[in-house]
Amino acid sequence: MDLNQIMQLIGDGADKAGFPEQPGRLYDPARYIMEAGGKRIRPAMALIAANLFTDHPETCMGPALAMEVFHNFTLIHDDIMDQAPLRRGRATVHEKWDLSTAILSGDVMMIRAWQLMMGMEDKNLRAALEMFNDTAVKVCEGQQYDMDFELRNDVTLDEYITMIRYKTSVLLGCSLYCGALAGGGNKEDAGLLYDAGVRLGIGFQIQDDLLDAYGDEKKFGKKPGGDIARNKKTYLQLRLLEKCSDSDRNNLEQLFIQTGTDETEKIATVISMYDQYAIRDDAFAIIQKYYHEALENIHRVAVPSERKQVLLALADQILNRDF
Amino acid sequence: MDLNQIMQLIGDGADKAGFPEQPGRLYDPARYIMEAGGKRIRPAMALIAANLFTDHPETCMGPALAMEVFHNFTLIHDDIMDQAPLRRGRATVHEKWDLSTAILSGDVMMIRAWQLMMGMEDKNLRAALEMFNDTAVKVCEGQQYDMDFELRNDVTLDEYITMIRYKTSVLLGCSLYCGALAGGGNKEDAGLLYDAGVRLGIGFQIQDDLLDAYGDEKKFGKKPGGDIARNKKTYLQLRLLEKCSDSDRNNLEQLFIQTGTDETEKIATVISMYDQYAIRDDAFAIIQKYYHEALENIHRVAVPSERKQVLLALADQILNRDF
Repeated sequence: MDLNQIMQLIGDGADKAGFPEQPGRLYDPARYIMEAGGKRIRPAMALIAANLFTDHPETCMGPALAMEVFHNFTLIHDDIMDQAPLRRGRATVHEKWDLSTAILSGDVMMIRAWQLMMGMEDKNLRAALEMFNDTAVKVCEGQQYDMDFELRNDVTLDEYITMIRYKTSVLLGCSLYCGALAGGGNKEDAGLLYDAGVRLGIGFQIQDDLLDAYGDEKKFGKKPGGDIARNKKTYLQLRLLEKCSDSDRNNLEQLFIQTGTDETEKIATVISMYDQYAIRDDAFAIIQKYYHEALENIHRVAVPSERKQVLLALADQILNRDF
Repeated sequence: MDLNQIMQLIGDGADKAGFPEQPGRLYDPARYIMEAGGKRIRPAMALIAANLFTDHPETCMGPALAMEVFHNFTLIHDDIMDQAPLRRGRATVHEKWDLSTAILSGDVMMIRAWQLMMGMEDKNLRAALEMFNDTAVKVCEGQQYDMDFELRNDVTLDEYITMIRYKTSVLLGCSLYCGALAGGGNKEDAGLLYDAGVRLGIGFQIQDDLLDAYGDEKKFGKKPGGDIARNKKTYLQLRLLEKCSDSDRNNLEQLFIQTGTDETEKIATVISMYDQYAIRDDAFAIIQKYYHEALENIHRVAVPSERKQVLLALADQILNRDF
């Protein structure tokens, strides 16, 4: 199947994900966030991985949708924690309904993800669930580290990479892993794909950091420098703090704590320091490193390379976004 | 094993439940609520059910603790929704820490429950997880119905029974079910025990309603009538509304909406109506009905009756509390 056919399959199932009608106040928010769409990258990865091993990836929809439902559960709860008013251009669940509704609907979506995982055959059920449980725990831990980091000023680059690996990358790895097992792949190949997915995820997140500082406003519809304005810890910021002279570090730390600095000026100052220390090159280099490690893993999966074209194209699409 | 030995086993495991040290802000609240104790009735039921079929119920600690961890997760999230300041005499998690911590710690506890369920052997894994997933969904639905009911004035007694069945009873049934399977029982016996647990749970909840109105303050340390003062929907209230004359129903509805009535007088008025319509007798009768149906199911389980003594004693303890 090509990517369009895969996305078509997902579209049919993801809008519903099997939520009952009643009680409406519990399941309406679940339908609301699922129907808002999003890129559906996780179920796509699951079905693409399944399709490496079977011509019938549609039989693997349960675990594929589990990834999407779990992801959407984390969005509902994260939006409460971040006090976010909007998600995908629409009111967040706790804004549109209320706090209790957002908590409880998120909870029941999480449980629904485990129900969907039961679509795994008996022979793979334990391995898939162990991976899914481990991933789900890491996603929570990653969210906790992300919140902890906001209150710390000594976060290292390694800690940052661990945080993004837990918070976003492992679920991409898990999607490939469970899809591969569901499609008939063995644990070794599934493990290679897991590692590939995690690496693509880390690279993607660093690329996101890069786009926030250097992205073309016309292409991305977002004014560059938002992360800098909010003092957000990113690969770029932490790499700069690691690399720069003591006096530049002092200047930067001043810039982070002082209020009243003109935002445009602050962004320009930090970006000129990124340029001075070649942080952009470092970011490109590390993204490429993760990308190539991912490719290497994909190449080692024991199926003919013509079956891998959709996955390779997706990896390329993920990590070679146009700036 | 007798009940003391079972409780000893649980005490050793439940305080920890295997939560890692880091990140502390994620796992400290999980340890905090688990260490606060509670009656541990769910893991006790699981091990007692296992002990019907095996002399080594200690091998079933995983699923038993899953029930306790899941229950404690629901307490953390329910306490947010109810804006409760205290739980087991200590500050609730969202009060002691904050909202985000309570949401995320609850989430990771829920996932931990699924990890503990993986202690089921392969041959029973699917059946146990299907029961556990179904139960977890119902617990959320029950909580939603409970919240919905606060805003409605047309709740029927049947709806109320469904709500308490979902919100609290199915997890007792699930504890017996998973314990039975883990101990080597077959699905038929596990199913009988599930139904018994659900019935004990419903009876227990109605008994709770009864104790709130008629309990001895000296014995229960709680002034009777709290539910009446707060207009809480209970078996007693809904049964009275179902049974009383139209004019009494009007008087009651007036009493619910008017403010400024002396609380003691309000409680006395409603209790005198309970007495007038013999609501207490109805409650006793329905508790006895559920109790005897539960016993009947337990008697049908295909193990020698001497193995059932601990379970029968527990059932008796649950549903024949001294007033």
